[in-house]
Formats: sequence, C-alpha cells, structure tokens
Amino acid sequence: MFRRTSTLARTALLAAAVVIIPVTALGAAAAPQQGAAADGAGPAGSAGTRTVQDSGQSGDPNTGERARDVVFAVHGGAGTLRREDMSPELEREYRAKLTEAVRTGQRALARGKSSTAAVEAAITVLEDSPLFNAGKGAVFTTDAENELDASIMDGATLDTGAVTGVTHIRNPISLAREMMDNSRHVLMSGEGAERFAQHRGIDLVTQDYFFTERRWESLMAAKGGESDFDFGETGTVGAVAIDDDGDLAAGTSTGGLTNKPVGRVGDSPIVGAGTYAKNGNIAASATGTGELFIREAVTHTISAQVEYLGRSVSRAAGAAIDKTEALGGNDTGGVIALDSRRNLAFTFNTSGMYRGYATADGEIVVKIFADE
Amino acid sequence: MFRRTSTLARTALLAAAVVIIPVTALGAAAAPQQGAAADGAGPAGSAGTRTVQDSGQSGDPNTGERARDVVFAVHGGAGTLRREDMSPELEREYRAKLTEAVRTGQRALARGKSSTAAVEAAITVLEDSPLFNAGKGAVFTTDAENELDASIMDGATLDTGAVTGVTHIRNPISLAREMMDNSRHVLMSGEGAERFAQHRGIDLVTQDYFFTERRWESLMAAKGGESDFDFGETGTVGAVAIDDDGDLAAGTSTGGLTNKPVGRVGDSPIVGAGTYAKNGNIAASATGTGELFIREAVTHTISAQVEYLGRSVSRAAGAAIDKTEALGGNDTGGVIALDSRRNLAFTFNTSGMYRGYATADGEIVVKIFADE
Repeated sequence: MFRRTSTLARTALLAAAVVIIPVTALGAAAAPQQGAAADGAGPAGSAGTRTVQDSGQSGDPNTGERARDVVFAVHGGAGTLRREDMSPELEREYRAKLTEAVRTGQRALARGKSSTAAVEAAITVLEDSPLFNAGKGAVFTTDAENELDASIMDGATLDTGAVTGVTHIRNPISLAREMMDNSRHVLMSGEGAERFAQHRGIDLVTQDYFFTERRWESLMAAKGGESDFDFGETGTVGAVAIDDDGDLAAGTSTGGLTNKPVGRVGDSPIVGAGTYAKNGNIAASATGTGELFIREAVTHTISAQVEYLGRSVSRAAGAAIDKTEALGGNDTGGVIALDSRRNLAFTFNTSGMYRGYATADGEIVVKIFADE
Repeated sequence: MFRRTSTLARTALLAAAVVIIPVTALGAAAAPQQGAAADGAGPAGSAGTRTVQDSGQSGDPNTGERARDVVFAVHGGAGTLRREDMSPELEREYRAKLTEAVRTGQRALARGKSSTAAVEAAITVLEDSPLFNAGKGAVFTTDAENELDASIMDGATLDTGAVTGVTHIRNPISLAREMMDNSRHVLMSGEGAERFAQHRGIDLVTQDYFFTERRWESLMAAKGGESDFDFGETGTVGAVAIDDDGDLAAGTSTGGLTNKPVGRVGDSPIVGAGTYAKNGNIAASATGTGELFIREAVTHTISAQVEYLGRSVSRAAGAAIDKTEALGGNDTGGVIALDSRRNLAFTFNTSGMYRGYATADGEIVVKIFADE
C-alpha cells in the first residue's frame, strides 16, 4: 500500500470552496436528450448477443465471452479501444496492471480472505494507477475537479456501501467498504461521505493528488473542441469474486465522465445499476453510459433474469447490455458477471474492454480488445 | 401554485456555507449494523402477503390492498400510524390533503396531460404541504438543514430524472422532471443539481422556507432523547399514474430521516429502488427504510417479477416488501404499484400508510390506517 500523499483539515476545504463562479460557466448539463450522446447514437434493435467460449471475437453487435471455473475477475472500463491508438508500451502497462489487479484478488482469496475483501483489494490497485479512470487517474469535471463514485456489495448479506461525489478520498472503494461495515447507511454523497471518512479515521487527500497531465489534456480538449464530453470514455474499474464459502461480491469505482457537470451521478455508486451481488445468484459490475445503465437497472436485471428466468449468466448479461443499446444506440458499454457456479461472462458492445480473470486453478487471463 | 418565498444568488449560498464545524459534532452515521435500527428490528422470515380486495385489514404480516380500474394513486409515507396518536382535526387535514393530491393528478389526466405531468402535479401538492416529509414539511438533518431527494420516471421512454441532497429547491419533483426533460443526465446531487436548476431558470429558496416547528421539535427530541434517529418515520410522498395512451409514470419525493447524517441518500432518488415505471409492466413508488429498499432494489424487483414471473402486481409488491422484512425486520415500509391493466396494489407492513387513489370513473378513496 502506498502512503497517503497529504491530509488537510475540513475547515480548509470549506474555505477553499468560496470562489465566485458564474453559473453559466459550469455548462450545467443542458442537452435535449439524455443518453443520446453516446458514440454513434441512434435507434438500435435489441439484437441477440453472440457468445463464444473463452475467446472473444469482434462483437457484432456484442462481444460475449465466457469462462468457466473463475473465482475472480476485473474490468478497467469498456469503450473505443483500438490497437492503432495505443503504443505497445502503453498496452504492456495496461496488461501488467490488469494482471496485478487480478493476482491481488486471487491471492486474497487464496489466503482465505472474503470475496468482499478480494474485490476491495483489487480495485484499490486499479484506483492507485493513473491508467484507469478511478482514484489517481480520475477524469476532471467541467469545474476542473475530480469527483469520485464507488460501491461494493456482499452477496452473502446483501450489505452494501457506496459513495458519490467525493473529492478528497484516495480510495473510494475502501470508503464504500467502510460504510458497508460501519454505518447503518448504504449511500452517502459529497461532504457528508467525507465527514464519515474522517469520523472513521480515513485521511483525506487534496485535489492535487488526482492531477494527471493526461486527464487535464482531455478536459482541455473537451472544452476547446467539442462542447460535449464523451460518453464513450473508458476507465471505470470493477471486480467480482467468489470465495471458498461460495460468497459472491462485486464492486465498482469511477471518476465518471471528462467535463461532466458538477454533481452528476452515474451508475457506478448505484446498487442494482453499476454493482450487484447476491449469493446463489450473481455478482456483477458494469461500465458504460451510466445514465442508460441506471434506467435499465443493468446489474439487477442480470440478477433477476438468472433468478426468475433461469437464464445463464452470459445470456442475462447479453440481454441487459442489449437493453441499454435499445435505449441509447451502439457502444453503450459492458459488464462482467460471475455466477455462483463460477461461470464468468464478459459482455460489451464496444471495440474493447480492459478485463482479466483468474480461475480456481490459478490461471490468469488478461485481454483488452474485442477481437482477442 | 404558491409563489416562491425568496430567492438568492449562488454566491451568497457558498459564502453562507463557511462555518467551522467540528466533525465530531456531526454524528457521522457510525453504527455497527445497517438496517438493523428499524423499529422492532430483528430477523424475520419472508412470510406471505395477505391480500384483500379493496379493503385493507390490520397487517399480519403485511397489509396488501388491491383496487381495480385505477388511473392515479398517491402515498404520503408508511410508518407507525395510530388513531390514538392523531387528533381528529389532524386526521381530517391529512385526508383532505391526500384527497387534493389525488384529485390534482386525476384532473391532470382528465385534461389530457401525460401520466408524468399528473405525477409531478400531485407530488407538488404534497411537497407544498407541511404535513408530509417532502418539500415544505421536510425533516431536518443532524446539521439542522433540510436535504431533499426526488425522482420521476416515464414508463413510455424509461426516461428519468432524479436529484439528491438539494437544500434550496422548493419542489424537488419538478427539478427531477426538468432533469428528465432537459438534461442528458438522470441523477445529480447537491450544489451541482442546484446549478442545473438555476441554469434552467428555477429560483432557489433559502433554508428558512423549510422550517417548521414540528420538524424542529423532532430533531431536538432525536438529539436530546435517543442518540438514534427513527427509521420508522413517515411522510415520504409518491405517486403513480396511467394515462389514456397507456403510459405509466411514477415519482417519489422525501426529506429523508430526522437527524440523518449530512449526505445520506435513501431510496427515493434511486431508480429501481424508490421509483420505477415501465410501460406494459408497472409504475411503483416506495417509502420506508431506504437502505433496505436500495439493497433489494424494491421497485425494480416488482417490475422484474411481473415481467419475468408473470406475477400479479399485488403479489410482486408483497414479495418485494417481504424481502425488505427478511433483511431488516418488521415495519420496513410500503409501496404503491400500478400495472398497465389499471390494477393497483398498496402493500405495507406498518400500522399505516397515507394513501389514496382515483378510479377511471372518478371515484376517489383515501385511507390512513391499516385497518380501514
């Protein structure tokens, strides 16, 4: 674990907030149609999901991969990912970090930790990397801050904790876990969530911790070029796990969308949308155009289809992503879902999803593009 | 419509926020078990729901009422409601306001307004009344502010808008509607949501608008007597409607829990938990211990059981409330749910729920206690 870079008193934070901001400069989320701004948006039928055994192929319309005997899996976001846009070195960095995250989760399970602990540990690895849009690598809001969302759920108890709009929390997934374990509440936002963090002895970090040149340039590009932000952004992270007791767990963490309006909440902190876990059923974490995933309650839909329709986890995951397509067009995102018999589904309708998994016998597989 | 009482500039609000607050004074939500603090909390089996035709009886375990040919319904919260605790005058006031809200929704539909417009209009009536825990009558947080949550959903499009933690919005349901109609986002929190409101020309009100002696006394009692707040509190409001086009809609609005920590989010603004609407399926609005309703995705569960299991809306509503009981014990709350064939279910496991409905032929029925 890294040490926290800096701490500060609550009072300093409040004082720092006193800046006179013309409302009109904040681009407050006005656009005629929600969800319609996704890449290549347009009406799309709810076409079937092609599923291949443990070897994804270019998705048309969706890429659906399955793997068996999986105990742990992560994603690092779904979106427009093309080989030609990524240097070999950067690609290696992504694969290495995904591998590290999967191994972290797998080892936690091997040491007898709970699935919830394994999910938290792996997501912390991804949050601490600047490569992903969560924690350290979070994107900037239109007000040039980093507002983070996260949630975690324990399938054994249906306990959950989630935070939204936190701006001084290094590892939002750990704050979500703290809320699950030590609060009667399940979802807290903004300053209230940070007060809870302080109450529990979690140090705050200043906003400069989250500064990365890459994300700043993305913000400048969004403000300079298009008036819009990009709903097709990648980098939300998530994990699912099953431990030796058969307990399922899932978690998700994100910085949201570059140039998003202040206070915008996506699906990542919403139980039933971005994250769901229920023993004997499924654990799932989603990534994509959060607005659509909220409207279709994507992870709860997968849970309900498996429970009520007896569908396989991969078929249910495909159906849930199809629902988001029907609302919002192509490239809406993806989901990872693990059932209680250790069947894993990766389903996404984008050209890539950072992803990886570990099997019970220790094999680790990491992929990025749809066609690998 | 009343006129707004006062407006103020954003900058004044920000300046007013600069008060040095010792974190320890804010009682930041630390308690060992979430959900376990509901009245009479304890493990409870998932017993069946008794359903009676259009005449509720004392619930054991749940009160499930049905009504046919319903086009509009409201609730004003479920909780511990006993005749002996309520003066005849106050009871008359509640019945009169519920009747006004139902009539408002019914008349909107009769004038050809959409189900979404009818839901908004009726909830506005309840928000403007000090009787209910929403808008004007909202309860106080532990920091003696009023933080409001609301959501609305159009079953025809699955469009939705929701706000959480707004402190200067007179009618949060109207801001939720504004977000649904004029933002690509579906959920915004706190200051960001209020910036969106200003961007859309909605005036802000100062916190004193929400001051009521009754709610202040509740806060003082919570701080003086028990260290806890009361999860069994009543007063969240909601509505469901179906219009002549067969379009379903639902909405929910609340002030949350007396003495709640700053930033706590319950189920009311969460699509799939507090509110859900989908054409050909159901429209539902929930009220109760929000943490449990989030964990069980109560309104989406009703939708999924009707769609995937072919259950009646009343059976699905009973099953969803039973799920919250299994997690959190008795008195977890209730839900109103209307299906596309105009069957209405009121289901609750408390001693009362403020509720009312209108049939297609104009009959209006209003009830409070479980045994009427």
